[in-house]
Amino acid sequence: MSKTLELAKDLIARRSVTPDDQGCQELLISRLEPLGFKIERMRFGDVDNFYARRGTSGPLLVFAGHTDVVPTGPVEQWHTPPFEPTIKDGMLYGRGAADMKTSLAAFITAIEAFVADHPEHPGSIGLIITSDEEGIAVNGTVKVVEILKARNELIDFCIVGEPTSSKVVGDMIKNGRRGSLSGRLTVKGIQGHIAYPHLVKNPIHLAAPAIKDMVETVWDEGNAYFPPTSWQISNMHGGTGATNVVPGEVEILFNFRFSTASTADSLKQRVHAILDKHELDYTLTWELSGNPFLTPKGSLVTAISAAIEQAFGVTPELSTSGGTSDGRFIADIADQIVEFGPLNATIHKLNECVAVADIEPLQHAYKLTLEALLK
Amino acid sequence: MSKTLELAKDLIARRSVTPDDQGCQELLISRLEPLGFKIERMRFGDVDNFYARRGTSGPLLVFAGHTDVVPTGPVEQWHTPPFEPTIKDGMLYGRGAADMKTSLAAFITAIEAFVADHPEHPGSIGLIITSDEEGIAVNGTVKVVEILKARNELIDFCIVGEPTSSKVVGDMIKNGRRGSLSGRLTVKGIQGHIAYPHLVKNPIHLAAPAIKDMVETVWDEGNAYFPPTSWQISNMHGGTGATNVVPGEVEILFNFRFSTASTADSLKQRVHAILDKHELDYTLTWELSGNPFLTPKGSLVTAISAAIEQAFGVTPELSTSGGTSDGRFIADIADQIVEFGPLNATIHKLNECVAVADIEPLQHAYKLTLEALLK
Ligand SMILES: [Zn+2]
Ligand SMILES: [Zn+2]
Repeated sequence: MSKTLELAKDLIARRSVTPDDQGCQELLISRLEPLGFKIERMRFGDVDNFYARRGTSGPLLVFAGHTDVVPTGPVEQWHTPPFEPTIKDGMLYGRGAADMKTSLAAFITAIEAFVADHPEHPGSIGLIITSDEEGIAVNGTVKVVEILKARNELIDFCIVGEPTSSKVVGDMIKNGRRGSLSGRLTVKGIQGHIAYPHLVKNPIHLAAPAIKDMVETVWDEGNAYFPPTSWQISNMHGGTGATNVVPGEVEILFNFRFSTASTADSLKQRVHAILDKHELDYTLTWELSGNPFLTPKGSLVTAISAAIEQAFGVTPELSTSGGTSDGRFIADIADQIVEFGPLNATIHKLNECVAVADIEPLQHAYKLTLEALLK
Repeated sequence: MSKTLELAKDLIARRSVTPDDQGCQELLISRLEPLGFKIERMRFGDVDNFYARRGTSGPLLVFAGHTDVVPTGPVEQWHTPPFEPTIKDGMLYGRGAADMKTSLAAFITAIEAFVADHPEHPGSIGLIITSDEEGIAVNGTVKVVEILKARNELIDFCIVGEPTSSKVVGDMIKNGRRGSLSGRLTVKGIQGHIAYPHLVKNPIHLAAPAIKDMVETVWDEGNAYFPPTSWQISNMHGGTGATNVVPGEVEILFNFRFSTASTADSLKQRVHAILDKHELDYTLTWELSGNPFLTPKGSLVTAISAAIEQAFGVTPELSTSGGTSDGRFIADIADQIVEFGPLNATIHKLNECVAVADIEPLQHAYKLTLEALLK
């Protein structure tokens, strides 16, 4: 059994349902310390995190990832017990196999192999590991990044091990992510009996033309790397169930996934302008989950693309699609950041798995990237 | 104490919270039988009703009303116990005082006085009394009307004793009511993660322009007796609370209050036309609570208006405003129908009351109407 497969299995065997690390991080630390990594454990609330660094000079290449996994769902519907890593028909099954314990194992074995070959490598290798990526992400990567930022420890290259591959491993890397901006809008009217329409102001009636305007708004056209910004309502609730009462207000929750062609502030201003144009009486609170970030083609994209091509025989496509990741936090202190990892087909699902044949090439791709950038 | 006040108090003392009659109807029957009324008790489900008739020839004048009352609300907030009729400062307090036990008492004493004066009156006097007007109104007046209709017992004049007066007793009678037509609309889309807008169809976004169209539609202009038809959404619900999921459907409950310038069928067709114009994928179920009905100026309106003027010194205004009443059912078999009764200021509220001074004039107005129409 390869060292990467063995470590991946050891990690999967730990029931680290978010945010409970269950010793995964100490297992990783026990492999990093002998290589000369300086370890900083950073526990916030009930979340374990650590930052590790080998070397003091630049450039600094950081691997980032998480030890926590999402819940299993109905265990009886798994073909194998989710926390007993099992190889069957060439696949390694277990919760976290794809998201993202195999990546963590490959980080470690890639670093071990690289350090064995280049004990005096220039620059530094770092790791940012959290146990709260799948949860509310408040006491995880964001806080580690705050500490690094405060002491001006900036990252030159960051590789996040999220499962970015789509059809075959290596076909897609994420060189950015859209931003996510949410709004909670309450449009106010005047409640009253439906038989007395002259005494009411129906907030749903008042909101509809504004919603129509927002749906028809082209927020931006996107750009070379990003699709256009999208606006979607997730929830709209007005009325108490009584069918003879016009409600006094309606609540609308919405979300922007936005490109670097817009900013959170510009989107907020434009929403307010539309609501004000319709002369609505409303309250609106905003939550910015993350700004968009982007690493255009450059040394990191070139290095990891070449490494993937060599390890998997596949040319990766650059993408900024999909949900958010901890990359949004690290982008704040990283000059270049990309995400690359296994197939995402089974993540967060029953019978999560990776192909055993993809595990060594993954370690190889990470090692080749180290060799390209720390030379 | 007047006989009307005494009977009103006897009725209020019975705790006849809808649909529990609590012997009110037997009390009324015990007064009608000695006058030669033929009584038909009609109990459907848990609802007591009766139909009474004196005479066999036409014209037939029917008094209609209900013995049930709405719940008291917090008893401790009443100044007097709601089922202990109490006179204080010239007011008779108690649940049902205005809606509509005083009217019932006045029906009886007016009939008693009229029969005493005109034992051989031409035509017939009828009563339709239910104990389910304040409830779901399924086993009440609507069923009594079905029976009368089946045997072709049609009504020439009907007086419903609902509290129609606004500022002073007699200032308003209802010579019609708007229809009520409700719809339950489900607009369908395609559910999905908010980060993948190209894979979803947002049903709230799709519905908004159709709602805007409906709000802007002039359904009709009303007519001499009716205000314009109004359309109102009472409830709109889409989304499960998850803020990163576009819902698969949105439910919209709406209601028309419609004039005789429109029909239920025409409104349905126009709503479908708007939804279809917007190419929505939807389901829509309809419920017609009542068609509009109208009694234009004629012998009944003339007679009761003159009676009110004589008894109260007030000229009543004709109105079709407000909610629905059992009049919508009776209108189906009545040539002319009006509603007239006490002030509606305290109905369904704490400390419901009528002025003692208004009670005898009410009886008088009903008696004068009998005299005008059965002569
Ligand atoms: Zn992940
Ligand atoms: Zn009533």
